[in-house]
Amino acid sequence: MSAPTTDVIAIGNAIVDVMAPCDDALIDSLGMTRGGMTLIDTTQAHALYEAMGPAREISGGSAANTLAGLAALGASCAFIGQVADDQLGEVFAHDIRAGGISFATPARAGDPPTARCLIFVTPDGQRTMNTYLGASQFLPPVALDEAAIAAASVLYLEGYLWDPEEPRAAMRRAIAASRNAGRQVAFTLSDAFVIARHGDDFRALIDAGEIDILFANHVELAALTGCDDFHQGIAALKDKVPCLIVTRGEHGAVAVRGGETAEVSAEPIAKVVDTTGAGDLFAAGFLFGHVRGRGLADCLRMGAVCAAEVISHYGARPEADLKALVAAI
Amino acid sequence: MSAPTTDVIAIGNAIVDVMAPCDDALIDSLGMTRGGMTLIDTTQAHALYEAMGPAREISGGSAANTLAGLAALGASCAFIGQVADDQLGEVFAHDIRAGGISFATPARAGDPPTARCLIFVTPDGQRTMNTYLGASQFLPPVALDEAAIAAASVLYLEGYLWDPEEPRAAMRRAIAASRNAGRQVAFTLSDAFVIARHGDDFRALIDAGEIDILFANHVELAALTGCDDFHQGIAALKDKVPCLIVTRGEHGAVAVRGGETAEVSAEPIAKVVDTTGAGDLFAAGFLFGHVRGRGLADCLRMGAVCAAEVISHYGARPEADLKALVAAI
Repeated sequence: MSAPTTDVIAIGNAIVDVMAPCDDALIDSLGMTRGGMTLIDTTQAHALYEAMGPAREISGGSAANTLAGLAALGASCAFIGQVADDQLGEVFAHDIRAGGISFATPARAGDPPTARCLIFVTPDGQRTMNTYLGASQFLPPVALDEAAIAAASVLYLEGYLWDPEEPRAAMRRAIAASRNAGRQVAFTLSDAFVIARHGDDFRALIDAGEIDILFANHVELAALTGCDDFHQGIAALKDKVPCLIVTRGEHGAVAVRGGETAEVSAEPIAKVVDTTGAGDLFAAGFLFGHVRGRGLADCLRMGAVCAAEVISHYGARPEADLKALVAAI
Repeated sequence: MSAPTTDVIAIGNAIVDVMAPCDDALIDSLGMTRGGMTLIDTTQAHALYEAMGPAREISGGSAANTLAGLAALGASCAFIGQVADDQLGEVFAHDIRAGGISFATPARAGDPPTARCLIFVTPDGQRTMNTYLGASQFLPPVALDEAAIAAASVLYLEGYLWDPEEPRAAMRRAIAASRNAGRQVAFTLSDAFVIARHGDDFRALIDAGEIDILFANHVELAALTGCDDFHQGIAALKDKVPCLIVTRGEHGAVAVRGGETAEVSAEPIAKVVDTTGAGDLFAAGFLFGHVRGRGLADCLRMGAVCAAEVISHYGARPEADLKALVAAI
């Protein structure tokens, strides 16, 4: 088996975030679930955009955000995801490539357009997401570069993309390609709604030992394990995945790897501006430490530092020099 | 003559800004003029975008930025400008309408696409702009709503848009419509390159008494008057326009109106993040005071406060509550 030439290859939604501040009353009047992620169709997308204030557009997508963090830290990365052949697709492709990430999935011609996520950010920094998946859900299995997957130390998969059929099939093939090459498969559960719909798939993958690294937040952990108690949830999973990371928002995170357990507090910051991407950047920091062979506590610290950076400004892609921020760890 | 129903109607470029931080070396290696505005074609736009780091998209356009400020301050506003029937056109139209500004110019079908401005922001906050005008330069005179122009206290025109032929003809018609209705015509000179190409037009308009309010920065003042000395430049113009405002970057601004002269210092801020829109928002603050019948010193203070807000963050549209910021003036 040849040595890996890429640190992390990820498959995820190719999304441009459309973000605007809003007050709490608007969240209520639009009937949105504060802090949640809701899939929306074209009609809903138009209605919500209409109700949104002046916005800014910043590339997003959960796994793509994680790669942006990893690349900023110095990891070599590749992304697989589906944009349409349109202006937002160009924006997404530009931003990911400009971040130093290899991205070779051809744009898809015709309708639907590139995915976008309408994100309402309340004064407390909480983000409420409404995702129009558009072209993103039509990632065909044929778009996979199995040689590239086999050449990456870690294959990182976004749970959100397990929902639509074509990408789910693509991800199953990708898992096989990665495992056949002796690499590690990392999976992020993304959102409780994904677990509600595909929890049996995830539990089967975990029981079959096909997930090496699992990222979840405390809500997703409860949804996956059926244990409302945080520690019971961890106990139920920790022997089934070689590396388990559970984030708890402002309460930090816990990781269990190879029998060792470590914990980290959230990194203190002056003001939470926008929580979009907090989990994605936590995963970036953790994975960077992991692929660099760092100790578990250091991996968690790197995750906490990267998450703190991304919630201190608008947008789910890092702005500060992440390398400098983790240099002392 | 009926009373005006709108405070300010503006004609300007309908542009989405594509902004990214960059180091000083990149400005040099790309052969750009630091702090300047350069018109670029499709080929140059692709090459510069390729060289740009991960970016964010925020609606811009000089006069449109001024209206965004005016509307945020509580003025009633309308915008005339040309977008294409594409995703960036939707973004521009959404953002201007979401700011409470009336915008009725129909999108233009087919090529070229909506205008964009590639803005490189150096660590000192200076912006270097490269504008692909696209659809914006094809604003036809027929797009003018002359009744709407006649109903606005002030018609605000962007010098940038004097350069392409169709909008220039539209603006000449708009000036006539505004003056025939007994309203005021405000003009911003935008950039020295516009004066180099159209200075004779501007001097003729001024000599004919068709400009009631003229905005310039100190470089544009020198280009228009041929006087390198700031005070000589003001002396050369002040009797030809009823209201003259000249900004001087970090040295504040001077205004002369009805024989009265006033001066303001730049508002101190913690950190200049991005100077894009400084002049546009200065004009917004000043015009707001002007249409509300405020004293000259107050108009200047409002301009300085709005300019300070917009240079404290990325993007040329206001983010903070401008009403609250000028409440004490």
